[in-house]
Amino acid sequence: MFRIPKKGEPIIDSLFQTDFYKFPMGQMIYHKHPNTIVQYEMTNRSTEVLLAEHIDIGELKEQLDHVMTLSPENSKVKALRGTNEYGNKMFEEDYLDFFEHKMKLPQYYLEKRKDGQLRLGSIGPWADVMNWEIYMLTIVTSLYMRNLLKGYSQFEIDAIFAKAILKLQEKIKKLQAAIAAGIPISFSDFSTRRAAFPFWQDYIVEVLSEIFPDDVFRGTSNVFLAYKHNVMAMGTNAHEIMMVYRVLFDSLMVSQKQALTDWESEFGLGLYIALSDTYSSDYFNQYIITPEQAATWKGFRQDSGDPFIFGEKTIRFYESLGIDPRTKLIVFSDGLDVDTIIKLASFFKGRIMTTFGWGTNLANDIGFKPLSLVVKAIKADGKGLVKLSDNIAKAIGKPTDIEKVKREVGYHEKFFVTPTY
Amino acid sequence: MFRIPKKGEPIIDSLFQTDFYKFPMGQMIYHKHPNTIVQYEMTNRSTEVLLAEHIDIGELKEQLDHVMTLSPENSKVKALRGTNEYGNKMFEEDYLDFFEHKMKLPQYYLEKRKDGQLRLGSIGPWADVMNWEIYMLTIVTSLYMRNLLKGYSQFEIDAIFAKAILKLQEKIKKLQAAIAAGIPISFSDFSTRRAAFPFWQDYIVEVLSEIFPDDVFRGTSNVFLAYKHNVMAMGTNAHEIMMVYRVLFDSLMVSQKQALTDWESEFGLGLYIALSDTYSSDYFNQYIITPEQAATWKGFRQDSGDPFIFGEKTIRFYESLGIDPRTKLIVFSDGLDVDTIIKLASFFKGRIMTTFGWGTNLANDIGFKPLSLVVKAIKADGKGLVKLSDNIAKAIGKPTDIEKVKREVGYHEKFFVTPTY
Repeated sequence: MFRIPKKGEPIIDSLFQTDFYKFPMGQMIYHKHPNTIVQYEMTNRSTEVLLAEHIDIGELKEQLDHVMTLSPENSKVKALRGTNEYGNKMFEEDYLDFFEHKMKLPQYYLEKRKDGQLRLGSIGPWADVMNWEIYMLTIVTSLYMRNLLKGYSQFEIDAIFAKAILKLQEKIKKLQAAIAAGIPISFSDFSTRRAAFPFWQDYIVEVLSEIFPDDVFRGTSNVFLAYKHNVMAMGTNAHEIMMVYRVLFDSLMVSQKQALTDWESEFGLGLYIALSDTYSSDYFNQYIITPEQAATWKGFRQDSGDPFIFGEKTIRFYESLGIDPRTKLIVFSDGLDVDTIIKLASFFKGRIMTTFGWGTNLANDIGFKPLSLVVKAIKADGKGLVKLSDNIAKAIGKPTDIEKVKREVGYHEKFFVTPTY
Repeated sequence: MFRIPKKGEPIIDSLFQTDFYKFPMGQMIYHKHPNTIVQYEMTNRSTEVLLAEHIDIGELKEQLDHVMTLSPENSKVKALRGTNEYGNKMFEEDYLDFFEHKMKLPQYYLEKRKDGQLRLGSIGPWADVMNWEIYMLTIVTSLYMRNLLKGYSQFEIDAIFAKAILKLQEKIKKLQAAIAAGIPISFSDFSTRRAAFPFWQDYIVEVLSEIFPDDVFRGTSNVFLAYKHNVMAMGTNAHEIMMVYRVLFDSLMVSQKQALTDWESEFGLGLYIALSDTYSSDYFNQYIITPEQAATWKGFRQDSGDPFIFGEKTIRFYESLGIDPRTKLIVFSDGLDVDTIIKLASFFKGRIMTTFGWGTNLANDIGFKPLSLVVKAIKADGKGLVKLSDNIAKAIGKPTDIEKVKREVGYHEKFFVTPTY
């Protein structure tokens, strides 16, 4: 059945084993701020797991060094050039040339921390360093999962994946039943950063693409797998844009507005999905997005806080602007499971369009508690970066920086649950 | 995961995808009665399953024709030559030469019967025609199972085998717990004629050989898999010997005794396991096996009737001859499941040695009722063959022939459950 990658076997074989959002973000960064020096660093939110006890530093180094030897396969650069689902010619030649021939992953730093965690990160020109994220997450997750499975025989591993297959089957049956009952469900695999192993995400994407039609299983965030299984590569942007932009401008508000117009200058409507929660979605809706943009953009991605409240507030937001929310979309992507997906799709049916980016619970549900691991931009031009999000427990940044930005935003614990428009 | 063989893909790729017992029996037949004309024919005991509705005759023909094009791989003939677990040089050069260079599977016959079953068999010199059995059973079973799975997606098939893996894991855990509790269990895979698919038996043999030591998982009846997974090829003889011998001699008793002495003239002690139930094991113990043979032979294979009663009677049989039953072995091989294996091993612990030949329930427990299919010798030199067995429901032969042999044996329904020694 499935074979756990052996010691020494490369976990990342292709630079396209990454999230699709890295490419549109990469192009905008390449065009607007390629040389801003940014630092990305890994954070293990599962603090009870002492990563340094699970992962051999030497082996992790070998894996990361291997990634640095890879060049983008030209055939896949061609596929990127030919990507037209988000508008024709979404990627420009200068950026494709940069990614294929000039992009160089900066040296990473790696050490054991005294608290048993790993300090892993990289500093370099933004257009280069931003590409590290998914490779680091995939490698660390795979090495961690492999260590958990160390004592198991091949047959016990087969049995673990047998159970995982049956859990996947249950999820599929629930989705099929919900769809048959008239609940409009469409979803994408967003597990690239989260999957237990690359082979397991590969298997899941293959299964979902065979079982569901295109308008139900929309695609995968994994570019390599999207090409392999002939489904759409899914993704737009992530917090790193808003986080770095904040320190590039004097004003938080100006920086955020600039990020939106920069995005608009790069891409067509297909990519107009706003990730609004970096400094809280209430702040975004009230101060950043203009009524014209609200009318033009396709919708929002919800990535923190209560998704039902987010949906209700989004509907009221559109209504307050005289926009019919039924013409707009919410992409839910925060810690989804199948029951939440069905509940949300059912709850908002006929009121606002919904789709789902399904990650950890889709491809890291094999009987072990998944790591909550992120690689985030933490500094730009020497200044500390901050993400607040709609759930303050997910805030990222130095406490003093977080407090400063909270004050600037007017963020308080109730802010994002009380509609202000 | 597992891939069901596609239409047109050969199911039998090697003439060693057969039961090991075919080779010792083959050698004795080659030496003693190579040219006796014998007819082998398939019987589907699962009469409720109309095979002709499940299996395309043309495809079955293609598969059988393909088997007729195969030659024994010389490397595996060498392995046969080097087989020494049953005594050095168990196979003689003339027989090895025959099997490698001269043995020719006779033409088969195949047609739809009016009752919806398939008439499939072959007639020819015994030393040739006896080799058809396992290839026919494997092909028919695979085509039948493939038809059952026809409507399933690859993922549904994955889920079926995921469940089958978890069932296998349960069985393994039960065996391990029983062994840990001091119950002396050893067993072999006897599923060559019964496995759902060759790949599934392959997987199971691989798993068992990795999990259990040699003295627990003793080996497999499948010669090809024994070599592939480096375990012992298991098998001695089957009913066809006793059935054909009966019509080669005037007297039932003389023929059976001759079969035993012919066997002794061919092989060493390692193969001295008597399959006693062809005309009932009571008859065999009372009239066929001599006290000297009972003392010399390692033991019996139990293949029909109540295994607990068989064991009790075997113990009393040995005791009546002044032989310590604890030095003797029963190989149980009739429709075993894990609970029966554990019960029998526990029940006879310290009284007589036991081992188990585990077939259908080991390798055809994937959620569909397995076929009860046999290919048996039905005629020799134009005379109808009979097998009574310890369970008259398993009797084979024309009713008039069965009645005749029953009278000759003195078989009545109670005969084999009432000890007569």
